[in-house]
Amino acid sequence: MNVLVVNIGSTSFKFRLFDMADERVLAEGAVEGVGSPGSRVHIKLGEAETVERSDPIGDQAKAVEACVGRLTGAGAGGSRFAIDAVGFKAVHGGPVSEPVRVTADVLSVMKEFADLAPAHNPPYAAAMKAFETQMPGTPLVAAFETGFHQTIPAARSYYAVPYEWAVRYGVRRYGFHGASHRYVAGRTSELLGRRDLRVISCHLGGSSSVCAIDSGRSVANSFGTAPQSGIPHNNRVGDMDPYALVLVRARTGADMDEMLATLATRGGLLGISGVSNDMREIAAAADTGNERARLALDMFVESVRHYIGAYLVALGGLDVLVFTGGIGERSAGIRRRVCAGLEFLGIRLDPSRNDAGGVEATVSADDSPVEILAMRTDEELIVARQTVEVLARSIATAGEPVDKPKRAHEGS
Amino acid sequence: MNVLVVNIGSTSFKFRLFDMADERVLAEGAVEGVGSPGSRVHIKLGEAETVERSDPIGDQAKAVEACVGRLTGAGAGGSRFAIDAVGFKAVHGGPVSEPVRVTADVLSVMKEFADLAPAHNPPYAAAMKAFETQMPGTPLVAAFETGFHQTIPAARSYYAVPYEWAVRYGVRRYGFHGASHRYVAGRTSELLGRRDLRVISCHLGGSSSVCAIDSGRSVANSFGTAPQSGIPHNNRVGDMDPYALVLVRARTGADMDEMLATLATRGGLLGISGVSNDMREIAAAADTGNERARLALDMFVESVRHYIGAYLVALGGLDVLVFTGGIGERSAGIRRRVCAGLEFLGIRLDPSRNDAGGVEATVSADDSPVEILAMRTDEELIVARQTVEVLARSIATAGEPVDKPKRAHEGS
Repeated sequence: MNVLVVNIGSTSFKFRLFDMADERVLAEGAVEGVGSPGSRVHIKLGEAETVERSDPIGDQAKAVEACVGRLTGAGAGGSRFAIDAVGFKAVHGGPVSEPVRVTADVLSVMKEFADLAPAHNPPYAAAMKAFETQMPGTPLVAAFETGFHQTIPAARSYYAVPYEWAVRYGVRRYGFHGASHRYVAGRTSELLGRRDLRVISCHLGGSSSVCAIDSGRSVANSFGTAPQSGIPHNNRVGDMDPYALVLVRARTGADMDEMLATLATRGGLLGISGVSNDMREIAAAADTGNERARLALDMFVESVRHYIGAYLVALGGLDVLVFTGGIGERSAGIRRRVCAGLEFLGIRLDPSRNDAGGVEATVSADDSPVEILAMRTDEELIVARQTVEVLARSIATAGEPVDKPKRAHEGS
Repeated sequence: MNVLVVNIGSTSFKFRLFDMADERVLAEGAVEGVGSPGSRVHIKLGEAETVERSDPIGDQAKAVEACVGRLTGAGAGGSRFAIDAVGFKAVHGGPVSEPVRVTADVLSVMKEFADLAPAHNPPYAAAMKAFETQMPGTPLVAAFETGFHQTIPAARSYYAVPYEWAVRYGVRRYGFHGASHRYVAGRTSELLGRRDLRVISCHLGGSSSVCAIDSGRSVANSFGTAPQSGIPHNNRVGDMDPYALVLVRARTGADMDEMLATLATRGGLLGISGVSNDMREIAAAADTGNERARLALDMFVESVRHYIGAYLVALGGLDVLVFTGGIGERSAGIRRRVCAGLEFLGIRLDPSRNDAGGVEATVSADDSPVEILAMRTDEELIVARQTVEVLARSIATAGEPVDKPKRAHEGS
């Protein structure tokens, strides 16, 4: 069974086609610059062939067309893969967090929560609709980024709002990056040969979050209600006091929607540094003495350390500290800064192992009580597996109508 | 020199008169239920005399009149103390955080930040104006709750907002409870005979905050831009994702001001428990199986533990953990829950010492690497000392015009 996994950003469309018999990647690719004149299509088939073309890709529907065309041979330069199902690394389904078949109800709840995930929910919905049109009958599965975090206890996922805000309106900490943290949980257990591990997983990249994992289950995540919260992101704010909006409104006259839109596009590392939304460029600017770039870098590191400390307490101790995501996997400098001075907690990097890094590398010292790993995450594999599970469940209950998605935290 | 210190809540007016020659308390008292028909006046003179009267006290000006009248003998039942200066435990002066003489500029900046501290700034401003009217010529000093936290590094006090929001509009973490945490810092140093201590101070009461103190200086505080943030408070929300407001608006139609007003009056322990804004009543309800009361209690404890973990990392280790405020000083149960399972961090309570408690008690075990103290705070003493310092500075620069208050974080 071939499962196509789709991972969408506001201007990107990434895909990977798995043969789920052995979880082999048959093909992968990306459309970058969706909606801009300079959009590009990259495709890699197996290990060998790479096709790169420059096409004008106006929207997510065109991106779907480019992807499907090349994979199934419907278009020029295409090959002849079957696509048996499509899995989406969807983001915010509010009360719907378990992986589900894409239905009108699912699209409706994604729309309901679109203002909370403005960079994510609308392009996913657009791509889902395009697949429905272009590959009618092919099962589509939404695997939400919130799914892994349903095991977080209420005492850590509720805000101290009026109770009805939590149970009726869905005001709580959802947690995101579920596919990545779930992969880290599983892979760390495999590598260490134990399931009863207390793990802190730091997914650091364009979006960043820290997750506390106890025996494979998420027990805390730095994201809140929306994927703009927690650690400062590339251009999204991270944690912030809502009352601060009053100050900005008084000085600028901006309304709530304008301010929240600004925080989702001109905040984060970009907002503070004024240099870039890319950590590599910010680190380079900081090295040449740019004060705002240095502040952005320091804030990022402080925020990750804040959550590591908090989650060490939540877990009652720590066995493994994992760095993943683009920055976590590749930046020895960020790992060094995050771990600096934490030897008293048993967190002891080996400087040369850390500098060497790797796709799956132990970077702690031999005498470090906490194992420290740098790891490449594999969110697409998790989504592909969840897609198979959902379809297997549908087949097991064939003949019954497709379930309405289960809405958690409602009506209680 | 006799300094009257005033500590105001939305419906309370507390005062204490110090003879600063020996920091002796000459008199203290409170007006409770300001603005409600059942208001009461308590006054204690020295150790002996206690006067309690039931008076209709309609507003802060009437509360000032009752206080001044009884202390200076201007009214019935009064004694004959001189009041040489008045110090206010003021809350939010935005960019003005050092203690200053109350001037029109100070009142203006307090008004500018009134929407951030709706329960605090307006009644303080009203009382200051009443003292100006009723005791013309007596110097008035505002000692802001933010003052102690000016030493927090920018990497921990900024949010990742557009940079101009931070430097022009004052969007940052201010920190509050400065008088209490400053008292804890000084008193802990005295008790242990050392200044180079890493202290985590937990002020737990109607308002709650956790502060990281390194060698007497604040390096982190759980409060953000407004005193509604951080740990859940009696009826104020604590930390919350601003994007959650979008969900509430969509379901209720409430605008931003209405939602923020709700979070400042119907959130916190009251909002979650639905039982009370008083921790004793919530704990009692939780004991009898009330699920929401139990959740409120658990959330409170989790939030304190979250910050203890984060600040342990910020400090790079811990020497002393202090519990103060009404709950911190008096609730053995809360101290026990907060410290549960933290032996791996060197935090080891002695159960019987903890149960016994005291005004200034070591509650850690003899072999606990971290000293744990339960302590009565003395915010009024800190304000009285700061009042004297401000006046001494004015006298040293006599003849010069009164300084404009220094506004930090502006124009840079």
